[in-house]
Amino acid sequence: MTVQVAVCGPGECSDEDAAAARRVGELLAARGAVVICGGGGGVMTAVAAGARAAGGLVIGVWPGDSREGASPDLSATIVTGMGEARNAVIVRSADAVISVGGSWGTLSEVALAMRRGGIPVVALGGWRVVGAGGGDVPGVRHVATPEEAVAAALG
Amino acid sequence: MTVQVAVCGPGECSDEDAAAARRVGELLAARGAVVICGGGGGVMTAVAAGARAAGGLVIGVWPGDSREGASPDLSATIVTGMGEARNAVIVRSADAVISVGGSWGTLSEVALAMRRGGIPVVALGGWRVVGAGGGDVPGVRHVATPEEAVAAALG
Amino acid sequence: MTVQVAVCGPGECSDEDAAAARRVGELLAARGAVVICGGGGGVMTAVAAGARAAGGLVIGVWPGDSREGASPDLSATIVTGMGEARNAVIVRSADAVISVGGSWGTLSEVALAMRRGGIPVVALGGWRVVGAGGGDVPGVRHVATPEEAVAAALG
Amino acid sequence: MTVQVAVCGPGECSDEDAAAARRVGELLAARGAVVICGGGGGVMTAVAAGARAAGGLVIGVWPGDSREGASPDLSATIVTGMGEARNAVIVRSADAVISVGGSWGTLSEVALAMRRGGIPVVALGGWRVVGAGGGDVPGVRHVATPEEAVAAALG
Repeated sequence: MTVQVAVCGPGECSDEDAAAARRVGELLAARGAVVICGGGGGVMTAVAAGARAAGGLVIGVWPGDSREGASPDLSATIVTGMGEARNAVIVRSADAVISVGGSWGTLSEVALAMRRGGIPVVALGGWRVVGAGGGDVPGVRHVATPEEAVAAALG
Repeated sequence: MTVQVAVCGPGECSDEDAAAARRVGELLAARGAVVICGGGGGVMTAVAAGARAAGGLVIGVWPGDSREGASPDLSATIVTGMGEARNAVIVRSADAVISVGGSWGTLSEVALAMRRGGIPVVALGGWRVVGAGGGDVPGVRHVATPEEAVAAALG
Repeated sequence: MTVQVAVCGPGECSDEDAAAARRVGELLAARGAVVICGGGGGVMTAVAAGARAAGGLVIGVWPGDSREGASPDLSATIVTGMGEARNAVIVRSADAVISVGGSWGTLSEVALAMRRGGIPVVALGGWRVVGAGGGDVPGVRHVATPEEAVAAALG
Repeated sequence: MTVQVAVCGPGECSDEDAAAARRVGELLAARGAVVICGGGGGVMTAVAAGARAAGGLVIGVWPGDSREGASPDLSATIVTGMGEARNAVIVRSADAVISVGGSWGTLSEVALAMRRGGIPVVALGGWRVVGAGGGDVPGVRHVATPEEAVAAALG
């Protein structure tokens, strides 16, 4: 069974995050993984472009009611019409989750992935979650480069 | 933008329906359409096998919580974890819907496609819907062969 | 545990269907059942008004992103933001399903209820489903009055 | 239109969090707000018990396929069958969100509420979200008592 990796991140992002997401997409495609993303702009369109450029398959799980506005680099678009509830579908479809950058939507996907459990959840940049005691809540693997992110996701 | 066609049908079906579904998958793939299906057995696995054999892309929109049990011929599996609510997602993702054979789940997809409106809804075999006056409720195009189904779906 | 009964029907309906739906709502409330409906117009708003007038609880499972447009007679509104995928949620929440009148959306709910199985599915008016052999597909109980519908639903 | 407030929190929680959640439920009911919760254990069952004891209405938006296991204090249970995707439905149904305690599921609800925007998001205890610069990401109102939480939610 083909490995499926979700790549999550803000719909508007810095050039640095876009470049990192694109590289993550290229690396995942090169490893033969199917990329699952939200289908939108920013990190989502960058990872889709990277995966497509490397000959990979990339599926967008889109929140809207029609395909209008979805990234042109998607191999296929699942039109959920569910808004942000689709974040749970992205996470459930994945054998590993990589987040690039930080936003509330992205954090919801990281949290849903940790809630699900049993799969690697890897963060390249982005926000941190601090528990009542003041330290990082354990579980998310924070990495510094696209190469480390893909290695942590695919083992 | 690539055309996406949903193919719906019972998870357990006759040999005749399976052969028809497989042929529909082959024809859609030959026309360059992405096939969207429910990812399960019967008509779903037959259309996936047909599309895959013809070199096409086929995405399963799976009701369960994990990929276990999904058809091995899927190019990618979206694990919705939503049960039959995923029928609405299948229908929304499609530029046309073809049903092969009849069941309550299949009928829900036909009805959701007609409710959505604006796309061809094609039935190869299966059930009929009769209005208060006694005649067929208009809208669904009933056809007799896979070739007619694909022609009605893709125009 | 309180009994929950879903009442489904078109968002635009005849005066006759509206009166029947209102009566169904009154009867269900009088029996102590919680009414679940789609929260919109037509049959949905009529059943909500009937249930509320009889002092019952009625929950709308609304397809939109906000409560704007939902029936004012709802005790509470669940804002699914899922469009017609919410039909599956309505059906799953019910110990019995009553449809009043016919439409494609209503038929999707009847079909999803039959697909689920194990609960009474009762039709007051509306469409019929005919199998390949020409006869009604068995399962849905067709009744002629609100009183019969509620009796069939609650036993 | 009745105000609806979502109360989120872990399915297993400390006695302190349970007492706080119960008090939040009582206060919301006393203010005439409908309580929306996940329908499960821990914080969810405590807020349901508090709202019910104060004569309020409390709706559970349940992740499972049947009502089995849902809190007995719910006025009605919406059986989504969607797993954690139901977190988005809880948040969307609310005019304000209060979280009590911390967990990944709870954090997903806080994040989805902030992603949605435009409503008060109030945290009583629980985790904090820290941005790239090292400070709290702004938006969530952290409070110390049930009274402050309800005041912040209802204004």
